[in-house]
Amino acid sequence: MSLLVIGTVAFDAIETPFGKTDKIVGGAATYAGLAASYFYDKTKIVAVVGDDFPQEEIADFNKHNIDTEGLQVKKGEKSFFWSGKYHNDMNSRDTLVTELNVLADFDPIIPDSYQDCEYLMLGNLTPQIQQTVIKRLKNRPKLIVMDTMNFWMDIAMDDLLETIKLVDVLTINDAEARQLSGEYSLVKAARKILTMGPKYLIIKKGEHGALLFSEDLIFSAPALPLADVFDPTGAGDTFAGGFIGYLAKVGTINFNNMKNAIIYGSALASFCVEKFGTEKLKNLSKEEVAGRIQQFVSLSQFAIVE
Amino acid sequence: MSLLVIGTVAFDAIETPFGKTDKIVGGAATYAGLAASYFYDKTKIVAVVGDDFPQEEIADFNKHNIDTEGLQVKKGEKSFFWSGKYHNDMNSRDTLVTELNVLADFDPIIPDSYQDCEYLMLGNLTPQIQQTVIKRLKNRPKLIVMDTMNFWMDIAMDDLLETIKLVDVLTINDAEARQLSGEYSLVKAARKILTMGPKYLIIKKGEHGALLFSEDLIFSAPALPLADVFDPTGAGDTFAGGFIGYLAKVGTINFNNMKNAIIYGSALASFCVEKFGTEKLKNLSKEEVAGRIQQFVSLSQFAIVE
Repeated sequence: MSLLVIGTVAFDAIETPFGKTDKIVGGAATYAGLAASYFYDKTKIVAVVGDDFPQEEIADFNKHNIDTEGLQVKKGEKSFFWSGKYHNDMNSRDTLVTELNVLADFDPIIPDSYQDCEYLMLGNLTPQIQQTVIKRLKNRPKLIVMDTMNFWMDIAMDDLLETIKLVDVLTINDAEARQLSGEYSLVKAARKILTMGPKYLIIKKGEHGALLFSEDLIFSAPALPLADVFDPTGAGDTFAGGFIGYLAKVGTINFNNMKNAIIYGSALASFCVEKFGTEKLKNLSKEEVAGRIQQFVSLSQFAIVE
Repeated sequence: MSLLVIGTVAFDAIETPFGKTDKIVGGAATYAGLAASYFYDKTKIVAVVGDDFPQEEIADFNKHNIDTEGLQVKKGEKSFFWSGKYHNDMNSRDTLVTELNVLADFDPIIPDSYQDCEYLMLGNLTPQIQQTVIKRLKNRPKLIVMDTMNFWMDIAMDDLLETIKLVDVLTINDAEARQLSGEYSLVKAARKILTMGPKYLIIKKGEHGALLFSEDLIFSAPALPLADVFDPTGAGDTFAGGFIGYLAKVGTINFNNMKNAIIYGSALASFCVEKFGTEKLKNLSKEEVAGRIQQFVSLSQFAIVE
């Protein structure tokens, strides 16, 4: 039994109104894997890096009990690199540089020791590669969560639709839900997307929280109001990783557990944005996480007495 | 003991992507008064109309136990008229016509029988008039809630700041909170606005719900995800009226009761937008309201078990 996370492990250079970084470690699998590791200690990664990727960073994964057997290190090649600049509202950003490098011909090889995968987190990547991972697993995982983005809707919609068919939970943001469904109303968008394959849809709304839809239920989770959002990079991956990590820990898939999973994912995402990159996410104590969960409880829970 | 609502009672002509109305009854005091009446049966209105205002509509207020002694009817004059057209996203609108008519020289006369006011709802109006009402009450109400909008920030900021000083709760939307405070972060905006007078600030975020801030607590209320928002006119007034009506009913002002009040206000607002004008709001049963409250509970409540 394990949780397999696939996605990028990469370098980012980030500029926000609060400052600027050199190349720091990022990538969907990095954020999702770290987040999941706070709840579940059998998290395994499939990703690819170049030999420019620091050995200490791989050691850091292992310190978080993340299995890196499936992390391919390509000799003489360079890791994927992305550079972006956030606008003042932190809700939009410009991509300054994208260097695919090792990602250009990434073949997601699943080590034999990973075939016990019960929980699969498909981090944001080419839908084609996401699909390949599903097909290479001998047993269909108990739960497949897929994250994606508008970029793949623009250039690979057919592949995306093929892959969506195979998953249990899809996580996208509100603009992407509208793009994918052609519906402006998120309720109508969700209804349509839930006919495309997934049994659950999570619509991420950034500072406005997240919505979870099943065929007949809706859950609205708040985001923690923050004085400063320092760096939103990786917040969505962190959310998804925390979400599936919590579900892997409790082991039972139902709507109530998914509600809690969303709160845990949101709590980790609220830490993620407080510092650049993975800095905050790498160094959380159990007490900090529990305290943040309590903040979500007092933020959103009420008691109606007639 | 009573709840006094001041604001406009008026005609609206509304165009949304779903259709178009002729002149229908609207106005902040209309929506807020009707909403409050579902929870509190000693609601009284101060407003002004012309003699073009239908007698049946006044009778409708009375049927909802709303006292209309303070509703001035100006002979030979016309009621305030506003006409607007909503854009496809329903979050923005263009004002097509504004005819002040009787509102141009509105003097808010408080009948003696209204001096038992314990709860005061200052619906959206000139800050000057809102302030006059406070000063004309012999005893300072236990709770003063003030709604306002960007229009007054643009043309009467000094008056607005004077009036804000005198109230307990201010309700504005997110863009208005940013305009009033000069801060983009809503947490920072709230901190600043809470130094301007109010002890509580409610930031209305439309489809994203509402935030309640006190000096040291925050509550995040969801909005009910709706397939269709038919007509958003009056949703904010309905929210405010439901909010203060619930508090008048329970009679104790504290943060927990305010949380519930926001849920009740949000529930009524979710009905308001389902039809044009006050149609839905005029004809709700207790069961419908209770059922909608339950929808808010299942929408936002979760149970973390470690």
